[in-house]
Parts: sequence; C-alpha cells; structure tokens
Amino acid sequence: MTEDMDSKTHEKGQRYKIPGGPTQPEIVAISLLKLEVVPGDLVADIGCGTGTVTVALAQKAETVFAIDTRKEAISCTKEHCLHAGCSNVELIMGDARSIIKTIDRIDRAFCGGSKGIDEIIALLYARGSVRIVVNAVLLETVITTMEAMKKNGMHSEVVHLQISRSTNLAGRTMLVPIHPVYIITGSR
Amino acid sequence: MTEDMDSKTHEKGQRYKIPGGPTQPEIVAISLLKLEVVPGDLVADIGCGTGTVTVALAQKAETVFAIDTRKEAISCTKEHCLHAGCSNVELIMGDARSIIKTIDRIDRAFCGGSKGIDEIIALLYARGSVRIVVNAVLLETVITTMEAMKKNGMHSEVVHLQISRSTNLAGRTMLVPIHPVYIITGSR
Amino acid sequence: MTEDMDSKTHEKGQRYKIPGGPTQPEIVAISLLKLEVVPGDLVADIGCGTGTVTVALAQKAETVFAIDTRKEAISCTKEHCLHAGCSNVELIMGDARSIIKTIDRIDRAFCGGSKGIDEIIALLYARGSVRIVVNAVLLETVITTMEAMKKNGMHSEVVHLQISRSTNLAGRTMLVPIHPVYIITGSR
Amino acid sequence: MTEDMDSKTHEKGQRYKIPGGPTQPEIVAISLLKLEVVPGDLVADIGCGTGTVTVALAQKAETVFAIDTRKEAISCTKEHCLHAGCSNVELIMGDARSIIKTIDRIDRAFCGGSKGIDEIIALLYARGSVRIVVNAVLLETVITTMEAMKKNGMHSEVVHLQISRSTNLAGRTMLVPIHPVYIITGSR
Repeated sequence: MTEDMDSKTHEKGQRYKIPGGPTQPEIVAISLLKLEVVPGDLVADIGCGTGTVTVALAQKAETVFAIDTRKEAISCTKEHCLHAGCSNVELIMGDARSIIKTIDRIDRAFCGGSKGIDEIIALLYARGSVRIVVNAVLLETVITTMEAMKKNGMHSEVVHLQISRSTNLAGRTMLVPIHPVYIITGSR
Repeated sequence: MTEDMDSKTHEKGQRYKIPGGPTQPEIVAISLLKLEVVPGDLVADIGCGTGTVTVALAQKAETVFAIDTRKEAISCTKEHCLHAGCSNVELIMGDARSIIKTIDRIDRAFCGGSKGIDEIIALLYARGSVRIVVNAVLLETVITTMEAMKKNGMHSEVVHLQISRSTNLAGRTMLVPIHPVYIITGSR
Repeated sequence: MTEDMDSKTHEKGQRYKIPGGPTQPEIVAISLLKLEVVPGDLVADIGCGTGTVTVALAQKAETVFAIDTRKEAISCTKEHCLHAGCSNVELIMGDARSIIKTIDRIDRAFCGGSKGIDEIIALLYARGSVRIVVNAVLLETVITTMEAMKKNGMHSEVVHLQISRSTNLAGRTMLVPIHPVYIITGSR
Repeated sequence: MTEDMDSKTHEKGQRYKIPGGPTQPEIVAISLLKLEVVPGDLVADIGCGTGTVTVALAQKAETVFAIDTRKEAISCTKEHCLHAGCSNVELIMGDARSIIKTIDRIDRAFCGGSKGIDEIIALLYARGSVRIVVNAVLLETVITTMEAMKKNGMHSEVVHLQISRSTNLAGRTMLVPIHPVYIITGSR
C-alpha cells in the first residue's frame, strides 16, 4: 500500500481523477446482484477504475483480481481497498487479455470497460467463468458482448437501466437523469 | 418588431438567454399532439420563453396569445415569430393570471411553467378551454396540475417522457438522457 | 376501396388485426418531426401496417407510397385513408426492396419494420432520399440501420424514447410504460 | 411453520397468489442499498407480501419484523423464510400502524405499500428509525411520503427507476419495460 494514503481526500474522491468516475451505487448494486458471487469465488474486476466495484466484490468473494491498464486506477483502487480494509484483493496493472491468461481460475468477472470485450469473454470462459457481467454505455458494445457470449455458448440477458435522482428546487422535487447503462449478464 | 433583430444570432439562440432554454423539439411535438389544435382556435402559450412552442402553435391556430412575465422572453419570442413569418401572434408581457381575464375566449392552452398553475387552469376553464397541456419537471407540479384539472371537472392524462439522444464517441454510439418531462393533458 | 368498409369498426381498430398494432401516437409525432416533410415531397411508408403513419404523412406530403407485404395491412391502410379522406396515397403490396426500384423518386421514407433494412436504406438513398426515419425495437436493428446509413454516407441520429402513460388507480395515478423505441434518423 | 409447506411449489411462486407479486430483484437490490442495514439492526418490512424483501433483509439484520394485513402474505413469507433458512424473522399479521406501536425499537424500515404511509413514517420515526425506504408506484404516494419525511425532520431522496429486460425474438433482442418505481429514502 502507498505510504502517502490519505483517507480524507480519498473519501471525497479528490485525489485521483479516473475518467468516467466511480460506477454509480445503484449500478454497482444491480451488477453485483447479477454476478451472484458465492463464498469461495475467485472474481475478476476488469477495468477496476476507482475501485468501487472491487471493494464491493471483496466483501463476498474469496479473492478479487482488480485489473486496469492505468497506473492511477490501480493506485486509486489500492487506496480504496486499504481504506475499506480489504485484504483479499490482488491489484494487477496491464491489459486484461494478457493478465487473464496468467490466472488459472476465474469463477466470475465484472467488466466495466469495453476494450477487447469479445476476446476477454472468450478468455474468461476458458478460465471457467460461470457468470460474466458487463456494464455498457455504447450500443455497439451491447451487441459485441451478446455475440461473444453466444459464441461461447453462454446465455445472455440485457437489463437497460434508466435512473433519475431527485434534486431539491426551492422545496420542490426535480428528477435528474444519470446516463443509461446496459447491464449484460452471460451465464452458462 | 424590434429593429435590431438579427436572425443569424437568433438562429443560434445566442441573443437572448432565457433560463431553461427552448423546449426540446420532441417535447414540443408531443405537447402539440396532445393539444389537438384545429383551425380557428384561439390558443394561449403561457410562459412562452424562447417562443419555440409559440411558433409551432401559430402554424395551426387562428391566433396565439404568447404570455410571459419576462421582458427578454417577450423579445425573444417576438424575434422568433418575425423570423418564422408568424403574423397571428399577440405578445403580452405580464402575469398570466391577470392577462387571461382580459381575453374573452381561449380554446386551448399550453403551459410551460408552473407558477400559479392551479389558478391558471381555473381561469382557462372559465374562458372555455377544451384542452390544456402542461409541461412539468417538478413532481409537485404534476400533482397540483392534476388536482386543479380534476377540481374543474376536466379529465387528465399524464405522459412521462424519458428521451436519450445519441452522441458519437470515436465512431460508436452513446445515448445521453435529457431531463424527463411530465406532459399533463386536461380535457373536457 | 372495399365495399364492405365500415368506418365504425375501423375506428375501434377491431376490423383488421395487424400484428404489432398501430404505432403509438407519441412515436408517430416524433417520427414525423424527424422526417421534416415539406410540401411537394414524395414519401414512402415502408411497412405501413395499420396505416396510422400513412395518414399522418399524407397531410404533409404530395404523395405517399404505402408499402407492405401483408394483404391485411394494405386493406387496413386503405380503409384508414378512406376514412381520413386521403387521396394522395398509393397502396402497393409486396416486398419494399422490389417496389422501391420501380419508383423514380422518393424524397423521404419512414420504415416501421426491420426486414432487409440495410438493403432498403441503400435503395432509398439511390432514389434520392434526403431523410430516412426508422423505428426499431430490436437492438440489432439499431446497429444494422446506423451501419447502413453510414455506408451510404448519411449522418445518423438515434433517439431512445421511453414513454409511460398514467392510469387511474382508485383516484390515484400509476404510470404504465409502453415498449421503448429507438428512432433512427438518417440524413444527407 | 405450516406442515403443508412445499418448497417446490414455493420456488415457482405458484402456491400463494399475492397481488402485485414479488418485488423485482433489481428493485430489491437498490432498496437494500438505500436502507444501509448494519449488523445489530432491528428492521421492519412493512407490507411484506411474498417475503422476497424479508429474506433479503434477514441476511443483514439482527431481527426482521415482517408485517402484513393479509393472511396469505404472512403464510407466503413464512414459507419463503423457512425455505431460505431465516430464523431471525418475526411474522406479524395486522395493520402496521397498530403493530409498530407495540415494538420498542425499529432501526430501519422498508415499506412496499402505500396505505397510511404518512402515519407509518411518523410512528417509525418515534421508534428511532434512522432510515426508511419506500417503494412507490403511485405519484401521489411519492409526494405524501416526501411530505411525511420532511414533517418529521428527515431528509428525503427520490430515485426513479425505469428498467427494461431483454427478451429473445428469433435470435434478436427486444427490451421489455417493467413498471417504473420511485424509491424514496428518508434519513436523519
């Protein structure tokens, strides 16, 4: 863990700027629901970003492999894990497609990004993954993901999530939408 | 009409800054659908703002009364009408609750705002309005509007509209949501 | 026109059962907004179904070519047009891909279906169409449509529309969703 | 526990017909996220229905008070708890407004219904509830709930959730919407 960790700045998310920011809590909750992690599971968090999903997975899994190509994402996730007291997370910087090959068994995986998603799904399937959950904001990624799951004999389900949150406007209530997300779940 | 009108700046909407901006074209289209204007109708546009709805109404109605409390809204609507060649629009600055009383007959009305909506509905009903369409973004306005319609013996329908529009992200397609709108239609 | 036409049964939509039913009025309104029909336009309604869109287009266009492979769709549209007093509609039964080739000029087109949409877009483009609007409920159709538009050098916009309508539940208001629709507009 | 329990019919939800059916899994997941149950909490599930939320709460809370006015809801929840192995659930049939008064302390509460929601919120607040989550499908309930929370000095947040799920149509993907839900969270 980094010596310069500072939970106060961390809490406010001011420290590391990860493009895209943390996955919204409602999206994390539904992604975890779909992943159906059980005790003993080895789980990969591919494109771990700020580490929000990593920490949530670590409460349920035996081990979480948190993977990201970006140095700042790994730093942010490390700090986030330290802050949350997770000791079952392995942080690995690099391209998921290379890293997955070095891991013997991955029971489940959460994919927050879209780069090389078809190859990633094939590799995860080969490592024995029984359930893969992908968060997509691009229509093309939804199709690519479903096709890759189908090609590997996985059943896929898509959930389109449109969330709006209230904001107070002079004592009255306006609903402000967050970006819609497609949550694609592949299972075998 | 103002002498200093400049359709070029107008077209870009740079000239007058009206809080809230123009009603989105899809929302205008559905509001007009619900208003069911027929030739000969005298129609009020209450809270005309940038004049987007005024111009659309003017294509169908005999006369449009464009009402707004804000000087800049009246100026912007005037310019918008001049630009579109509408000659059947009466621009009236002031509080709709006072102005409606000075008009003998109003067949239909579109209300973009929420201030005093319950009184406005009662006044419109007294002027013979057969159909009133209200755009609301505040939950409280939806309820107040429905109650006012009910109180005046009007049947009300609410349509909740959640629209997202595509944006190109490196050749791929992300959908970006606009603020959800409740379109409430009162009819007798 | 069929002798056995009966506007009463027609009005209730009881007569002809067209799978999918009529396009919802809000979807029609936004599709027409996007199509931007101007006087003098020759417009194709591909997959005319119940004729709801045909009749709406006929109010604005010079001529509407209403095309459908199904006999009952052509009958229903014919009746719908007769009922609405539209005399500028040409009803053509058959596969749009063959029929489009027999028409010299098509300025704009609305496509309610998805069968052969990529070929249809290429053919419409060759007939000079400046604007094509496709209603899609299948994710795969959205992608195929955008790709076909891109291939023909058209710019495409997708609008995702999620509409809910109120229903009265013992004096209170529940919102019931209709199926979400993607409205894809290609323009050159 | 009932002697005639049959987990097989239970699993398929065939046994007891509870109007409204079980809360959808995605809605349960987000409601639990908002409730923020911590170990040691005494939690009330008001309007427990099929018991789906009861069982989910029982994994996290010290004790769950599952309350419903309907005999069949209590039976269904009992069976559901037995099936899931929950031993920390107290099933209580009756009007929540009377029952809450008989319980000394309720740390958090989930309310699936809307009957007497304003009184229920006041009573829960008096028992020390720090967080109350209400699922509402009626617009009027959203307003009543927010007002009751405000009156008791609670801060409220509304999340509007519009979920669509994929269905396979001849190898292609259609998204089918479930009823939108407002999740209102009161906290002090």
